[in-house]
Amino acid sequence: MTKLVTFTDAKGPRVGAVLEDGRVLDLAATGSGALAGRATDMLALIEGGPAVLAAVKALAANPPAAALLPAGSVTLMAPIPRPRRNVFCVGRNYMDHVAEGDRTRGITNSELPKYPQFFTKAPDTVIAPEDWVPAHIGVTEWLDYEVELVAIIGTEGTNIPRDQALRHVFGWTIGNDITGRELQRRYGQWFKGKSLDRSCPLGPWIIPADELDALNTGIRCFVNGEKRQDSNTAKMIFDVKEIIHQLSLGFTLKPGDVILTGTPEGVGYAMQPPKTLKPGDVIECEVDGIGRLKNTVKAQ
Amino acid sequence: MTKLVTFTDAKGPRVGAVLEDGRVLDLAATGSGALAGRATDMLALIEGGPAVLAAVKALAANPPAAALLPAGSVTLMAPIPRPRRNVFCVGRNYMDHVAEGDRTRGITNSELPKYPQFFTKAPDTVIAPEDWVPAHIGVTEWLDYEVELVAIIGTEGTNIPRDQALRHVFGWTIGNDITGRELQRRYGQWFKGKSLDRSCPLGPWIIPADELDALNTGIRCFVNGEKRQDSNTAKMIFDVKEIIHQLSLGFTLKPGDVILTGTPEGVGYAMQPPKTLKPGDVIECEVDGIGRLKNTVKAQ
Repeated sequence: MTKLVTFTDAKGPRVGAVLEDGRVLDLAATGSGALAGRATDMLALIEGGPAVLAAVKALAANPPAAALLPAGSVTLMAPIPRPRRNVFCVGRNYMDHVAEGDRTRGITNSELPKYPQFFTKAPDTVIAPEDWVPAHIGVTEWLDYEVELVAIIGTEGTNIPRDQALRHVFGWTIGNDITGRELQRRYGQWFKGKSLDRSCPLGPWIIPADELDALNTGIRCFVNGEKRQDSNTAKMIFDVKEIIHQLSLGFTLKPGDVILTGTPEGVGYAMQPPKTLKPGDVIECEVDGIGRLKNTVKAQ
Repeated sequence: MTKLVTFTDAKGPRVGAVLEDGRVLDLAATGSGALAGRATDMLALIEGGPAVLAAVKALAANPPAAALLPAGSVTLMAPIPRPRRNVFCVGRNYMDHVAEGDRTRGITNSELPKYPQFFTKAPDTVIAPEDWVPAHIGVTEWLDYEVELVAIIGTEGTNIPRDQALRHVFGWTIGNDITGRELQRRYGQWFKGKSLDRSCPLGPWIIPADELDALNTGIRCFVNGEKRQDSNTAKMIFDVKEIIHQLSLGFTLKPGDVILTGTPEGVGYAMQPPKTLKPGDVIECEVDGIGRLKNTVKAQ
């Protein structure tokens, strides 16, 4: 399993791979000619295509000792710290989550959505693993979490056929679609409630697409250790292939695009009684085969 | 009236001002120390703040002859050719447009929206004045136009009070929020229908905020010379001050942000009978005190 990270220390941000024992392979320190100009920026690495990814995997499999940094000696950033454009998201993409949302509005016979509901967050809502989420006091009283599988696009494409869609995926990571729940509803369109500052924890790393069957894997969210969400990505209403196909209709997907694929049931506002995120709460988002994304809510 | 443009010719993109007689002041050729590093990129110019804008205005008022280019010798780009993040938009922001949209769904007693509906387009949907809009054949059968006043943010701010909002505006331009109307409806959330490739003509220039009362000015759209939309920005349900206030709640607005402020009545899909955009159609969007933004639909 290759864990591709963006990290930083006194020398500034660069790209690496976290090894089994926690040490970090500093790709910029390998001196690899195949990575020239691509070892300090994940977007450049992704744009390098299959040859660059193959070189990275080979280095991670036989890491040169001089390019290894001790476990815990660097700070992980989001794998893509600043996407070039909107973070693309899908709403209402697990049936049990559709149903729990409907119940909060008194609807008991939920209909299966016929099309994916796409909305976006601003690219600079992205924050790092372990970084803090503001409580947004005075702006929302209904801050909520949503664990999501995230697809990172590797290859440009428009009108991508469903059966070609996975070829456009560079890799997988985890996202937490932090939401101001009453804002999402109040403003009709979801952007306002979905794009609060620092509302998109992302990471901790990217697993290359060919190393994980992300279409059938466990997905969970814990708040202060309590399991709140527990599902499987196979339960998506629109799977990743369909999401990429539909999103790309008349709209060109580009390398480095970040797509959040929807959250399963168990969000705070639909609990009985509802629970909102509070300062000090620790949110851990987990996808089997990727890892855990941990963030803490801060009074702000 | 200072018309700030991004333009290009054989020497590549840079920033200028279009004079009354059509000649273009090439700010990069003025050798002005005040503009050092800011004369080839509108975002850098905006970030320069009031001192840089004052220097530009002074140069435009007394243009050095050596920095003047003949009318028609350059190609205008969008004033901000590639915004750094989502193009922010407001839907249903003129009451007569709300009503005409409701009528297409059989609703005859429209309610005044209580909150602005924010959605976004991808930043690379932006295209230049005179540039072509794809008909998106096979993707949408309901391509439509929407003339909009556009606010360009000059100064960063979060939770901006209504009475301070206009201080955060750098200037004004015109946008055409090209929409796949049935996609907008089909996908529930509007992003999919609103963010087709090349769906955001922008320009032709930015008028500095202090040179135009954009909150009370005529706004029109013509298709093949036929007047389709004809209103006044004073008729907005949420004026620019309220839009900036609400959008900035818990969400930091940044210099160079592009905000489309909604379209008045007269869009094609609400006409009797409905009219859709077809290849060859010429769309001209007009805001009094700014100018005209002209684009042609191309079979593609």
